[in-house]
Amino acid sequence: MRETLTLKDPETMAAWAEEQRRRGQRVALVPTMGYLHAGHLALVRRAQDEGDRVVVSIFVNPTQFGPNEDLARYPRDFDGDVTKLREAGVDVVFAPEAHAFYPQGFDSYVVPERLATGLCGASRPGHFRGVATVVLMLCHVTRADVAIFGEKDFQQLAVVRRMAQDLWLPTRIVGVPTVREPDGLAMSSRNVYLTPAARLQARALNQSLSDIAQQVQNGARDARQLENTLRQRLEATPGARVDYASIVDAQSLEPVAELNREAVAAVAVFFGSTRLIDNRRLPIPMTLS
Amino acid sequence: MRETLTLKDPETMAAWAEEQRRRGQRVALVPTMGYLHAGHLALVRRAQDEGDRVVVSIFVNPTQFGPNEDLARYPRDFDGDVTKLREAGVDVVFAPEAHAFYPQGFDSYVVPERLATGLCGASRPGHFRGVATVVLMLCHVTRADVAIFGEKDFQQLAVVRRMAQDLWLPTRIVGVPTVREPDGLAMSSRNVYLTPAARLQARALNQSLSDIAQQVQNGARDARQLENTLRQRLEATPGARVDYASIVDAQSLEPVAELNREAVAAVAVFFGSTRLIDNRRLPIPMTLS
Repeated sequence: MRETLTLKDPETMAAWAEEQRRRGQRVALVPTMGYLHAGHLALVRRAQDEGDRVVVSIFVNPTQFGPNEDLARYPRDFDGDVTKLREAGVDVVFAPEAHAFYPQGFDSYVVPERLATGLCGASRPGHFRGVATVVLMLCHVTRADVAIFGEKDFQQLAVVRRMAQDLWLPTRIVGVPTVREPDGLAMSSRNVYLTPAARLQARALNQSLSDIAQQVQNGARDARQLENTLRQRLEATPGARVDYASIVDAQSLEPVAELNREAVAAVAVFFGSTRLIDNRRLPIPMTLS
Repeated sequence: MRETLTLKDPETMAAWAEEQRRRGQRVALVPTMGYLHAGHLALVRRAQDEGDRVVVSIFVNPTQFGPNEDLARYPRDFDGDVTKLREAGVDVVFAPEAHAFYPQGFDSYVVPERLATGLCGASRPGHFRGVATVVLMLCHVTRADVAIFGEKDFQQLAVVRRMAQDLWLPTRIVGVPTVREPDGLAMSSRNVYLTPAARLQARALNQSLSDIAQQVQNGARDARQLENTLRQRLEATPGARVDYASIVDAQSLEPVAELNREAVAAVAVFFGSTRLIDNRRLPIPMTLS
Protein backbone atom coordinates (compact mmCIF):
# COMPACT_ATOMS: atom_id res chain seq x y z
CA MET A 1 0.00 0.00 0.00
CA ARG A 2 1.24 3.50 -0.88
CA GLU A 3 2.06 5.99 1.82
CA THR A 4 -0.67 8.62 2.37
CA LEU A 5 0.52 12.16 3.09
CA THR A 6 -1.58 14.49 5.24
CA LEU A 7 -0.94 18.13 4.32
CA LYS A 8 -2.43 21.23 5.91
CA ASP A 9 -0.35 24.03 4.41
CA PRO A 10 -1.49 25.13 0.92
CA GLU A 11 2.10 26.09 0.01
CA THR A 12 3.29 22.56 0.78
CA MET A 13 0.36 21.14 -1.16
CA ALA A 14 1.21 23.32 -4.17
CA ALA A 15 4.88 22.32 -4.03
CA TRP A 16 3.94 18.61 -3.99
CA ALA A 17 1.59 19.18 -6.92
CA GLU A 18 4.25 21.07 -8.91
CA GLU A 19 6.62 18.17 -8.36
CA GLN A 20 4.03 15.72 -9.74
CA ARG A 21 3.56 17.97 -12.75
CA ARG A 22 7.31 18.06 -13.39
CA ARG A 23 7.31 14.26 -13.36
CA GLY A 24 4.44 14.15 -15.86
CA GLN A 25 2.04 12.68 -13.28
CA ARG A 26 -1.61 13.69 -13.67
CA VAL A 27 -3.29 14.81 -10.42
CA ALA A 28 -6.93 13.92 -9.76
CA LEU A 29 -8.70 15.89 -7.03
CA VAL A 30 -11.72 14.86 -4.95
CA PRO A 31 -13.02 17.88 -3.01
CA THR A 32 -14.95 16.87 0.13
CA MET A 33 -16.14 18.30 3.44
CA GLY A 34 -15.11 15.07 5.21
CA TYR A 35 -17.26 12.66 7.27
CA LEU A 36 -16.73 10.30 4.38
CA HIS A 37 -19.18 7.64 3.24
CA ALA A 38 -19.33 5.13 0.38
CA GLY A 39 -20.33 7.90 -2.04
CA HIS A 40 -17.05 9.69 -1.43
CA LEU A 41 -15.14 6.44 -1.86
CA ALA A 42 -16.78 5.98 -5.27
CA LEU A 43 -15.39 9.42 -6.19
CA VAL A 44 -11.94 8.27 -5.02
CA ARG A 45 -12.09 5.16 -7.21
CA ARG A 46 -13.03 7.29 -10.20
CA ALA A 47 -10.14 9.65 -9.38
CA GLN A 48 -7.77 6.68 -9.37
CA ASP A 49 -9.01 5.78 -12.87
CA GLU A 50 -8.60 9.34 -14.14
CA GLY A 51 -5.27 10.37 -12.59
CA ASP A 52 -1.86 9.04 -11.64
CA ARG A 53 -1.95 10.67 -8.21
CA VAL A 54 -5.07 11.27 -6.08
CA VAL A 55 -5.61 14.18 -3.70
CA VAL A 56 -8.68 14.23 -1.45
CA SER A 57 -9.36 17.58 0.18
CA ILE A 58 -11.23 17.75 3.48
CA PHE A 59 -12.42 21.28 4.10
CA VAL A 60 -15.68 22.38 5.68
CA ASN A 61 -15.81 25.57 3.64
CA PRO A 62 -17.29 28.39 5.71
CA THR A 63 -18.25 30.61 2.75
CA GLN A 64 -20.77 28.09 1.41
CA PHE A 65 -22.78 28.05 4.65
CA GLY A 66 -25.41 30.68 5.41
CA PRO A 67 -25.57 32.39 8.82
CA ASN A 68 -28.37 30.09 10.02
CA GLU A 69 -26.95 26.89 8.56
CA ASP A 70 -25.09 23.96 10.10
CA LEU A 71 -21.44 25.06 9.75
CA ALA A 72 -20.63 24.70 13.46
CA ARG A 73 -22.36 21.35 13.88
CA TYR A 74 -21.42 19.88 10.49
CA PRO A 75 -20.29 16.31 11.32
CA ARG A 76 -16.51 15.78 11.50
CA ASP A 77 -14.34 12.68 11.89
CA PHE A 78 -10.90 13.58 10.62
CA ASP A 79 -9.04 10.54 11.96
CA GLY A 80 -11.70 8.17 10.66
CA ASP A 81 -11.59 9.91 7.27
CA VAL A 82 -7.79 9.60 7.02
CA THR A 83 -8.00 5.88 7.85
CA LYS A 84 -10.55 5.33 5.09
CA LEU A 85 -8.50 7.29 2.58
CA ARG A 86 -5.29 5.46 3.52
CA GLU A 87 -7.06 2.12 3.04
CA ALA A 88 -8.31 3.39 -0.32
CA GLY A 89 -4.73 4.17 -1.38
CA VAL A 90 -5.10 7.95 -1.68
CA ASP A 91 -1.80 9.83 -2.12
CA VAL A 92 -2.59 13.05 -0.27
CA VAL A 93 -5.22 14.15 2.22
CA PHE A 94 -5.27 17.96 1.97
CA ALA A 95 -6.92 19.62 4.95
CA PRO A 96 -6.27 23.38 5.01
CA GLU A 97 -7.24 25.57 7.96
CA ALA A 98 -10.02 28.08 7.30
CA HIS A 99 -7.72 31.05 7.94
CA ALA A 100 -5.25 29.78 5.32
CA PHE A 101 -7.94 29.91 2.63
CA TYR A 102 -9.69 33.01 3.96
CA PRO A 103 -7.03 35.23 5.52
CA GLN A 104 -7.72 38.77 6.66
CA GLY A 105 -8.22 40.97 3.62
CA PHE A 106 -9.58 38.12 1.46
CA ASP A 107 -11.40 39.94 -1.31
CA SER A 108 -11.93 37.77 -4.42
CA TYR A 109 -14.94 35.56 -5.00
CA VAL A 110 -16.05 33.52 -8.00
CA VAL A 111 -19.69 34.36 -8.52
CA PRO A 112 -22.00 32.18 -10.62
CA GLU A 113 -25.01 34.19 -11.73
CA ARG A 114 -28.08 32.64 -13.38
CA LEU A 115 -27.14 29.05 -12.49
CA ALA A 116 -27.07 30.00 -8.81
CA THR A 117 -30.46 31.70 -8.59
CA GLY A 118 -32.89 28.77 -8.51
CA LEU A 119 -33.21 25.44 -6.68
CA CYS A 120 -30.76 25.30 -3.74
CA GLY A 121 -29.53 28.81 -4.60
CA ALA A 122 -32.96 30.27 -3.84
CA SER A 123 -32.96 29.07 -0.23
CA ARG A 124 -29.18 29.26 0.23
CA PRO A 125 -28.10 32.72 -1.03
CA GLY A 126 -24.34 32.90 -1.47
CA HIS A 127 -23.95 29.12 -1.23
CA PHE A 128 -22.74 28.62 -4.80
CA ARG A 129 -20.48 31.66 -4.61
CA GLY A 130 -18.73 29.85 -1.75
CA VAL A 131 -18.67 26.56 -3.67
CA ALA A 132 -17.29 28.04 -6.90
CA THR A 133 -14.66 30.03 -5.02
CA VAL A 134 -13.34 27.11 -2.96
CA VAL A 135 -13.38 24.70 -5.89
CA LEU A 136 -11.26 27.11 -7.92
CA MET A 137 -8.85 27.52 -4.99
CA LEU A 138 -8.57 23.74 -4.56
CA CYS A 139 -8.01 23.15 -8.28
CA HIS A 140 -5.28 25.79 -8.30
CA VAL A 141 -3.47 24.60 -5.16
CA THR A 142 -3.50 20.95 -6.24
CA ARG A 143 -2.75 21.75 -9.92
CA ALA A 144 -5.57 19.28 -10.62
CA ASP A 145 -5.76 17.84 -14.12
CA VAL A 146 -9.18 16.47 -13.25
CA ALA A 147 -11.63 17.04 -10.38
CA ILE A 148 -14.35 14.58 -9.39
CA PHE A 149 -17.82 15.53 -8.08
CA GLY A 150 -20.91 13.55 -7.12
CA GLU A 151 -24.08 13.91 -9.19
CA LYS A 152 -26.15 14.04 -5.98
CA ASP A 153 -25.18 17.70 -5.73
CA PHE A 154 -26.57 18.31 -9.17
CA GLN A 155 -26.69 22.10 -9.18
CA GLN A 156 -23.20 22.24 -7.66
CA LEU A 157 -21.91 20.07 -10.51
CA ALA A 158 -23.62 22.31 -13.09
CA VAL A 159 -22.15 25.45 -11.48
CA VAL A 160 -18.65 23.95 -11.28
CA ARG A 161 -18.75 22.67 -14.88
CA ARG A 162 -19.89 26.07 -16.11
CA MET A 163 -17.25 27.89 -14.03
CA ALA A 164 -14.48 25.64 -15.36
CA GLN A 165 -15.68 26.17 -18.93
CA ASP A 166 -16.26 29.94 -18.58
CA LEU A 167 -12.88 30.62 -16.97
CA TRP A 168 -10.90 28.15 -19.14
CA LEU A 169 -9.74 26.32 -16.04
CA PRO A 170 -7.19 23.66 -17.07
CA THR A 171 -9.00 21.15 -14.83
CA ARG A 172 -11.45 18.67 -16.38
CA ILE A 173 -14.65 18.24 -14.34
CA VAL A 174 -16.08 14.71 -13.98
CA GLY A 175 -19.43 13.75 -12.45
CA VAL A 176 -20.03 10.38 -10.75
CA PRO A 177 -23.48 8.78 -10.22
CA THR A 178 -25.02 9.02 -6.78
CA VAL A 179 -24.35 6.12 -4.39
CA ARG A 180 -27.42 5.03 -2.41
CA GLU A 181 -28.25 3.17 0.76
CA PRO A 182 -29.89 -0.27 0.24
CA ASP A 183 -33.34 1.37 0.54
CA GLY A 184 -32.49 4.00 -2.08
CA LEU A 185 -31.71 7.05 0.09
CA ALA A 186 -28.86 9.04 -1.46
CA MET A 187 -25.77 8.84 0.74
CA SER A 188 -24.99 12.14 2.50
CA SER A 189 -22.95 13.16 5.51
CA ARG A 190 -26.10 14.90 6.72
CA ASN A 191 -28.09 11.63 6.93
CA VAL A 192 -26.52 11.17 10.38
CA TYR A 193 -28.71 14.03 11.66
CA LEU A 194 -31.94 12.15 10.93
CA THR A 195 -34.06 10.65 13.70
CA PRO A 196 -34.90 6.96 13.13
CA ALA A 197 -38.44 7.95 12.10
CA ALA A 198 -37.23 10.64 9.69
CA ARG A 199 -34.63 8.24 8.29
CA LEU A 200 -37.46 5.93 7.20
CA GLN A 201 -39.58 8.75 5.77
CA ALA A 202 -36.56 10.12 3.86
CA ARG A 203 -36.93 7.23 1.40
CA ALA A 204 -39.68 9.37 -0.15
CA LEU A 205 -37.10 11.51 -1.99
CA ASN A 206 -35.71 8.66 -4.08
CA GLN A 207 -39.07 6.91 -4.36
CA SER A 208 -40.93 9.95 -5.63
CA LEU A 209 -38.16 10.72 -8.14
CA SER A 210 -38.26 7.13 -9.38
CA ASP A 211 -42.04 7.34 -9.80
CA ILE A 212 -41.68 10.53 -11.88
CA ALA A 213 -38.99 8.97 -14.06
CA GLN A 214 -41.30 5.99 -14.61
CA GLN A 215 -44.18 8.27 -15.61
CA VAL A 216 -41.92 9.99 -18.15
CA GLN A 217 -40.85 6.59 -19.44
CA ASN A 218 -44.56 5.81 -19.85
CA GLY A 219 -45.12 8.94 -21.95
CA ALA A 220 -45.85 11.81 -19.53
CA ARG A 221 -44.55 15.09 -20.99
CA ASP A 222 -46.14 17.94 -19.01
CA ALA A 223 -43.39 19.08 -16.66
CA ARG A 224 -45.65 21.31 -14.53
CA GLN A 225 -48.05 18.43 -13.91
CA LEU A 226 -45.16 16.10 -13.04
CA GLU A 227 -43.76 18.69 -10.65
CA ASN A 228 -47.13 18.90 -8.90
CA THR A 229 -47.25 15.14 -8.54
CA LEU A 230 -43.71 15.15 -7.15
CA ARG A 231 -44.44 17.94 -4.66
CA GLN A 232 -47.72 16.40 -3.50
CA ARG A 233 -46.07 13.05 -2.92
CA LEU A 234 -43.32 14.68 -0.84
CA GLU A 235 -45.73 16.93 1.07
CA ALA A 236 -47.77 13.84 2.01
CA THR A 237 -44.68 12.37 3.71
CA PRO A 238 -44.94 12.62 7.52
CA GLY A 239 -42.41 15.09 8.97
CA ALA A 240 -41.33 16.41 5.56
CA ARG A 241 -41.26 20.09 4.61
CA VAL A 242 -40.63 20.60 0.90
CA ASP A 243 -38.09 23.31 -0.02
CA TYR A 244 -38.45 22.70 -3.77
CA ALA A 245 -39.54 20.02 -6.23
CA SER A 246 -38.59 21.14 -9.72
CA ILE A 247 -38.07 19.88 -13.24
CA VAL A 248 -35.37 21.88 -15.02
CA ASP A 249 -33.21 21.88 -18.13
CA ALA A 250 -30.13 19.75 -17.40
CA GLN A 251 -27.63 22.44 -18.47
CA SER A 252 -29.28 25.84 -17.96
CA LEU A 253 -31.27 24.76 -14.87
CA GLU A 254 -34.16 26.84 -16.25
CA PRO A 255 -37.68 25.46 -15.68
CA VAL A 256 -38.96 23.42 -18.61
CA ALA A 257 -42.62 23.24 -19.61
CA GLU A 258 -42.54 20.20 -21.86
CA LEU A 259 -40.17 17.26 -21.64
CA ASN A 260 -38.65 17.49 -25.11
CA ARG A 261 -34.97 17.81 -24.09
CA GLU A 262 -32.59 16.62 -21.41
CA ALA A 263 -34.17 17.47 -18.07
CA VAL A 264 -33.66 16.71 -14.40
CA ALA A 265 -36.13 16.37 -11.55
CA ALA A 266 -34.57 17.80 -8.38
CA VAL A 267 -35.91 17.97 -4.84
CA ALA A 268 -34.91 19.44 -1.48
CA VAL A 269 -36.79 18.43 1.65
CA PHE A 270 -36.38 19.36 5.30
CA PHE A 271 -36.85 16.82 8.08
CA GLY A 272 -36.69 19.03 11.16
CA SER A 273 -33.67 21.26 10.50
CA THR A 274 -31.97 18.66 8.29
CA ARG A 275 -32.14 19.46 4.61
CA LEU A 276 -31.76 16.57 2.15
CA ILE A 277 -31.45 16.80 -1.63
CA ASP A 278 -31.74 14.30 -4.47
CA ASN A 279 -32.32 14.34 -8.22
CA ARG A 280 -33.01 12.13 -11.20
CA ARG A 281 -32.13 12.59 -14.84
CA LEU A 282 -35.33 12.09 -16.82
CA PRO A 283 -35.27 9.84 -19.87
CA ILE A 284 -35.25 11.88 -23.10
CA PRO A 285 -38.28 10.88 -25.18
CA MET A 286 -37.65 9.36 -28.62
CA THR A 287 -38.84 11.76 -31.30
CA LEU A 288 -40.60 10.19 -34.28
CA SER A 289 -40.91 13.31 -36.42
CA MET B 1 14.40 36.53 -35.17
CA ARG B 2 11.94 33.96 -33.86
CA GLU B 3 8.69 33.32 -35.66
CA THR B 4 5.67 35.03 -34.07
CA LEU B 5 2.44 33.03 -34.04
CA THR B 6 -0.92 34.81 -34.16
CA LEU B 7 -3.62 32.72 -32.48
CA LYS B 8 -7.32 33.51 -32.16
CA ASP B 9 -8.76 30.25 -30.88
CA PRO B 10 -8.42 29.75 -27.10
CA GLU B 11 -8.24 25.96 -27.58
CA THR B 12 -5.25 26.33 -29.91
CA MET B 13 -3.66 28.77 -27.47
CA ALA B 14 -4.14 26.30 -24.59
CA ALA B 15 -2.67 23.44 -26.65
CA TRP B 16 0.42 25.53 -27.50
CA ALA B 17 0.80 26.45 -23.81
CA GLU B 18 0.45 22.82 -22.68
CA GLU B 19 3.18 21.87 -25.13
CA GLN B 20 5.49 24.52 -23.63
CA ARG B 21 4.74 23.19 -20.17
CA ARG B 22 5.59 19.64 -21.27
CA ARG B 23 8.93 20.92 -22.52
CA GLY B 24 9.60 22.68 -19.20
CA GLN B 25 9.36 26.13 -20.80
CA ARG B 26 7.99 28.91 -18.56
CA VAL B 27 5.31 31.07 -20.18
CA ALA B 28 5.18 34.83 -19.44
CA LEU B 29 1.93 36.62 -20.31
CA VAL B 30 1.43 40.31 -21.09
CA PRO B 31 -2.33 41.08 -21.15
CA THR B 32 -3.13 44.16 -23.28
CA MET B 33 -6.05 45.80 -25.06
CA GLY B 34 -3.80 46.56 -28.05
CA TYR B 35 -2.93 49.93 -29.63
CA LEU B 36 0.51 49.32 -28.22
CA HIS B 37 2.93 52.00 -27.05
CA ALA B 38 6.35 52.04 -25.41
CA GLY B 39 4.79 51.20 -22.03
CA HIS B 40 3.52 47.90 -23.41
CA LEU B 41 6.91 47.16 -24.94
CA ALA B 42 8.52 47.65 -21.51
CA LEU B 43 6.13 44.95 -20.23
CA VAL B 44 7.22 42.69 -23.09
CA ARG B 45 10.90 43.14 -22.22
CA ARG B 46 10.17 42.27 -18.59
CA ALA B 47 8.23 39.20 -19.75
CA GLN B 48 11.26 38.11 -21.78
CA ASP B 49 13.35 38.35 -18.60
CA GLU B 50 10.83 36.38 -16.54
CA GLY B 51 9.82 33.60 -18.93
CA ASP B 52 11.19 31.34 -21.66
CA ARG B 53 8.24 32.02 -23.97
CA VAL B 54 6.23 35.25 -24.19
CA VAL B 55 2.54 35.54 -25.01
CA VAL B 56 0.98 38.98 -25.54
CA SER B 57 -2.80 38.99 -25.54
CA ILE B 58 -4.71 41.67 -27.42
CA PHE B 59 -8.31 41.72 -26.26
CA VAL B 60 -10.55 44.75 -25.81
CA ASN B 61 -12.48 43.13 -23.00
CA PRO B 62 -16.16 44.16 -23.18
CA THR B 63 -16.97 43.30 -19.54
CA GLN B 64 -14.64 45.93 -18.15
CA PHE B 65 -16.35 48.77 -20.01
CA GLY B 66 -19.47 50.47 -18.65
CA PRO B 67 -22.49 51.14 -20.88
CA ASN B 68 -21.46 54.79 -21.42
CA GLU B 69 -17.75 54.14 -21.86
CA ASP B 70 -15.49 53.96 -24.91
CA LEU B 71 -15.69 50.25 -25.83
CA ALA B 72 -16.83 50.88 -29.42
CA ARG B 73 -14.36 53.68 -30.12
CA TYR B 74 -11.43 52.23 -28.15
CA PRO B 75 -8.44 52.71 -30.52
CA ARG B 76 -7.39 49.62 -32.48
CA ASP B 77 -4.45 48.86 -34.77
CA PHE B 78 -4.09 45.10 -34.92
CA ASP B 79 -1.67 44.92 -37.85
CA GLY B 80 0.54 47.64 -36.37
CA ASP B 81 0.51 45.85 -33.01
CA VAL B 82 1.53 42.53 -34.56
CA THR B 83 4.40 44.21 -36.39
CA LYS B 84 5.67 45.77 -33.14
CA LEU B 85 5.39 42.47 -31.29
CA ARG B 86 7.14 40.55 -34.08
CA GLU B 87 9.98 43.07 -33.99
CA ALA B 88 10.11 42.67 -30.21
CA GLY B 89 10.52 38.87 -30.63
CA VAL B 90 7.25 37.84 -28.97
CA ASP B 91 6.36 34.15 -29.43
CA VAL B 92 2.57 34.38 -29.57
CA VAL B 93 0.06 37.15 -30.15
CA PHE B 94 -3.20 35.84 -28.68
CA ALA B 95 -6.27 37.71 -29.91
CA PRO B 96 -9.48 35.88 -29.02
CA GLU B 97 -12.87 36.96 -30.35
CA ALA B 98 -15.30 38.37 -27.77
CA HIS B 99 -17.79 35.54 -28.34
CA ALA B 100 -15.09 32.94 -27.63
CA PHE B 101 -14.50 34.38 -24.17
CA TYR B 102 -18.13 35.33 -23.49
CA PRO B 103 -20.30 32.75 -25.25
CA GLN B 104 -24.05 32.53 -24.76
CA GLY B 105 -24.74 31.23 -21.26
CA PHE B 106 -21.54 32.69 -19.79
CA ASP B 107 -22.25 32.78 -16.07
CA SER B 108 -19.09 32.96 -13.94
CA TYR B 109 -17.39 36.18 -12.87
CA VAL B 110 -14.49 36.86 -10.55
CA VAL B 111 -15.63 39.63 -8.24
CA PRO B 112 -13.21 41.71 -6.20
CA GLU B 113 -15.01 43.31 -3.28
CA ARG B 114 -13.48 46.03 -1.07
CA LEU B 115 -10.52 46.68 -3.40
CA ALA B 116 -12.95 47.50 -6.22
CA THR B 117 -15.15 49.99 -4.37
CA GLY B 118 -13.02 53.15 -4.33
CA LEU B 119 -10.94 55.16 -6.81
CA CYS B 120 -11.66 54.01 -10.39
CA GLY B 121 -14.17 51.45 -9.06
CA ALA B 122 -16.38 54.23 -7.72
CA SER B 123 -16.90 55.84 -11.13
CA ARG B 124 -16.60 52.58 -13.12
CA PRO B 125 -18.92 50.06 -11.38
CA GLY B 126 -18.22 46.52 -12.59
CA HIS B 127 -14.93 47.53 -14.22
CA PHE B 128 -12.72 45.45 -11.92
CA ARG B 129 -15.09 42.50 -12.06
CA GLY B 130 -14.43 42.51 -15.82
CA VAL B 131 -10.68 42.93 -15.31
CA ALA B 132 -10.35 40.16 -12.71
CA THR B 133 -12.46 37.78 -14.80
CA VAL B 134 -10.56 38.26 -18.05
CA VAL B 135 -7.15 38.14 -16.36
CA LEU B 136 -8.04 34.81 -14.79
CA MET B 137 -9.24 33.50 -18.16
CA LEU B 138 -6.05 34.66 -19.89
CA CYS B 139 -3.80 33.15 -17.21
CA HIS B 140 -5.66 29.84 -17.52
CA VAL B 141 -5.66 29.68 -21.32
CA THR B 142 -1.97 30.57 -21.60
CA ARG B 143 -0.94 28.43 -18.59
CA ALA B 144 1.04 31.52 -17.56
CA ASP B 145 3.80 31.03 -15.01
CA VAL B 146 4.05 34.79 -14.70
CA ALA B 147 1.88 37.71 -15.86
CA ILE B 148 3.15 41.27 -16.30
CA PHE B 149 1.14 44.44 -15.58
CA GLY B 150 1.91 48.13 -15.69
CA GLU B 151 1.95 50.15 -12.46
CA LYS B 152 0.09 52.98 -14.21
CA ASP B 153 -3.09 50.98 -13.64
CA PHE B 154 -2.37 50.89 -9.95
CA GLN B 155 -5.76 49.71 -8.65
CA GLN B 156 -5.90 47.07 -11.40
CA LEU B 157 -2.54 45.72 -10.28
CA ALA B 158 -3.69 45.64 -6.64
CA VAL B 159 -6.91 43.82 -7.61
CA VAL B 160 -5.05 41.29 -9.78
CA ARG B 161 -2.38 40.64 -7.14
CA ARG B 162 -5.06 40.09 -4.50
CA MET B 163 -7.08 37.83 -6.81
CA ALA B 164 -4.04 35.70 -7.63
CA GLN B 165 -3.18 35.41 -3.94
CA ASP B 166 -6.74 34.77 -2.75
CA LEU B 167 -7.46 32.08 -5.35
CA TRP B 168 -3.99 30.47 -5.19
CA LEU B 169 -3.52 31.07 -8.90
CA PRO B 170 -0.28 29.38 -10.02
CA THR B 171 0.64 32.56 -11.93
CA ARG B 172 3.08 35.03 -10.38
CA ILE B 173 2.01 38.68 -10.83
CA VAL B 174 4.72 41.24 -11.65
CA GLY B 175 4.31 45.04 -11.79
CA VAL B 176 6.45 47.24 -14.06
CA PRO B 177 7.03 50.99 -13.54
CA THR B 178 5.05 53.43 -15.68
CA VAL B 179 6.68 54.57 -18.91
CA ARG B 180 6.25 58.30 -19.60
CA GLU B 181 6.38 60.70 -22.51
CA PRO B 182 9.35 63.11 -22.47
CA ASP B 183 7.17 65.72 -20.69
CA GLY B 184 6.13 63.24 -17.98
CA LEU B 185 2.63 62.24 -19.16
CA ALA B 186 2.06 58.55 -18.45
CA MET B 187 1.80 56.59 -21.70
CA SER B 188 -1.72 55.38 -22.43
CA SER B 189 -3.58 54.22 -25.51
CA ARG B 190 -6.22 56.82 -24.59
CA ASN B 191 -3.76 59.75 -24.98
CA VAL B 192 -4.60 59.63 -28.71
CA TYR B 193 -8.06 61.02 -27.87
CA LEU B 194 -6.64 64.29 -26.50
CA THR B 195 -6.89 67.57 -28.39
CA PRO B 196 -3.53 69.36 -28.74
CA ALA B 197 -4.56 71.82 -26.01
CA ALA B 198 -5.68 69.05 -23.62
CA ARG B 199 -2.50 67.10 -24.37
CA LEU B 200 -0.49 70.02 -22.97
CA GLN B 201 -2.72 70.47 -19.93
CA ALA B 202 -2.56 66.72 -19.21
CA ARG B 203 0.98 67.22 -17.94
CA ALA B 204 -0.72 68.41 -14.73
CA LEU B 205 -1.33 64.80 -13.61
CA ASN B 206 2.32 63.86 -13.38
CA GLN B 207 3.42 67.33 -12.26
CA SER B 208 0.94 67.53 -9.38
CA LEU B 209 1.86 64.01 -8.24
CA SER B 210 5.56 64.90 -8.33
CA ASP B 211 4.87 68.02 -6.26
CA ILE B 212 3.02 65.97 -3.63
CA ALA B 213 5.81 63.40 -3.47
CA GLN B 214 8.27 66.25 -2.99
CA GLN B 215 6.18 67.70 -0.16
CA VAL B 216 6.16 64.30 1.56
CA GLN B 217 9.92 64.07 1.06
CA ASN B 218 10.12 67.48 2.77
CA GLY B 219 8.18 66.24 5.80
CA ALA B 220 4.47 66.71 5.01
CA ARG B 221 2.43 63.99 6.76
CA ASP B 222 -1.22 65.08 6.71
CA ALA B 223 -2.76 63.02 3.90
CA ARG B 224 -6.07 64.96 3.84
CA GLN B 225 -4.21 68.25 3.41
CA LEU B 226 -2.01 66.78 0.68
CA GLU B 227 -5.12 65.45 -1.09
CA ASN B 228 -6.65 68.92 -1.02
CA THR B 229 -3.49 70.43 -2.49
CA LEU B 230 -3.48 67.74 -5.21
CA ARG B 231 -7.15 68.26 -6.06
CA GLN B 232 -6.88 72.06 -6.12
CA ARG B 233 -3.89 71.91 -8.41
CA LEU B 234 -5.74 69.61 -10.81
CA GLU B 235 -8.98 71.63 -10.63
CA ALA B 236 -7.04 74.74 -11.54
CA THR B 237 -5.92 73.08 -14.78
CA PRO B 238 -7.84 74.49 -17.79
CA GLY B 239 -10.21 71.89 -19.29
CA ALA B 240 -9.70 69.38 -16.49
CA ARG B 241 -12.53 67.77 -14.52
CA VAL B 242 -11.26 65.82 -11.50
CA ASP B 243 -12.78 62.36 -10.96
CA TYR B 244 -10.69 61.66 -7.86
CA ALA B 245 -7.45 62.72 -6.20
CA SER B 246 -6.75 60.35 -3.32
CA ILE B 247 -4.03 59.16 -1.02
CA VAL B 248 -4.55 55.53 -0.04
CA ASP B 249 -2.81 52.59 1.62
CA ALA B 250 -0.71 50.84 -1.03
CA GLN B 251 -2.19 47.37 -0.32
CA SER B 252 -5.70 47.86 1.07
CA LEU B 253 -6.44 51.00 -1.01
CA GLU B 254 -8.19 52.38 2.08
CA PRO B 255 -7.83 56.14 2.69
CA VAL B 256 -4.99 57.03 5.05
CA ALA B 257 -5.03 59.98 7.42
CA GLU B 258 -1.35 60.20 8.27
CA LEU B 259 1.57 59.17 6.10
CA ASN B 260 3.14 56.60 8.42
CA ARG B 261 3.06 53.60 6.08
CA GLU B 262 3.37 52.75 2.40
CA ALA B 263 0.88 54.94 0.56
CA VAL B 264 0.06 55.95 -2.98
CA ALA B 265 -1.32 59.18 -4.41
CA ALA B 266 -3.68 58.37 -7.28
CA VAL B 267 -5.60 60.65 -9.62
CA ALA B 268 -8.17 60.37 -12.39
CA VAL B 269 -8.98 63.40 -14.52
CA PHE B 270 -11.31 63.92 -17.46
CA PHE B 271 -10.36 66.10 -20.42
CA GLY B 272 -13.63 66.24 -22.34
CA SER B 273 -14.79 62.61 -22.39
CA THR B 274 -11.23 61.24 -22.13
CA ARG B 275 -10.37 59.95 -18.71
CA LEU B 276 -6.67 59.75 -17.75
CA ILE B 277 -5.17 58.18 -14.63
CA ASP B 278 -1.79 58.32 -12.95
CA ASN B 279 -0.30 57.60 -9.53
CA ARG B 280 2.83 58.00 -7.46
CA ARG B 281 4.15 55.85 -4.64
CA LEU B 282 4.90 58.20 -1.74
CA PRO B 283 8.23 57.92 0.07
CA ILE B 284 7.84 56.12 3.42
CA PRO B 285 9.03 58.46 6.18
CA MET B 286 11.99 57.34 8.27
CA THR B 287 10.86 56.69 11.83
CA LEU B 288 13.21 57.85 14.57
CA SER B 289 11.37 56.36 17.55
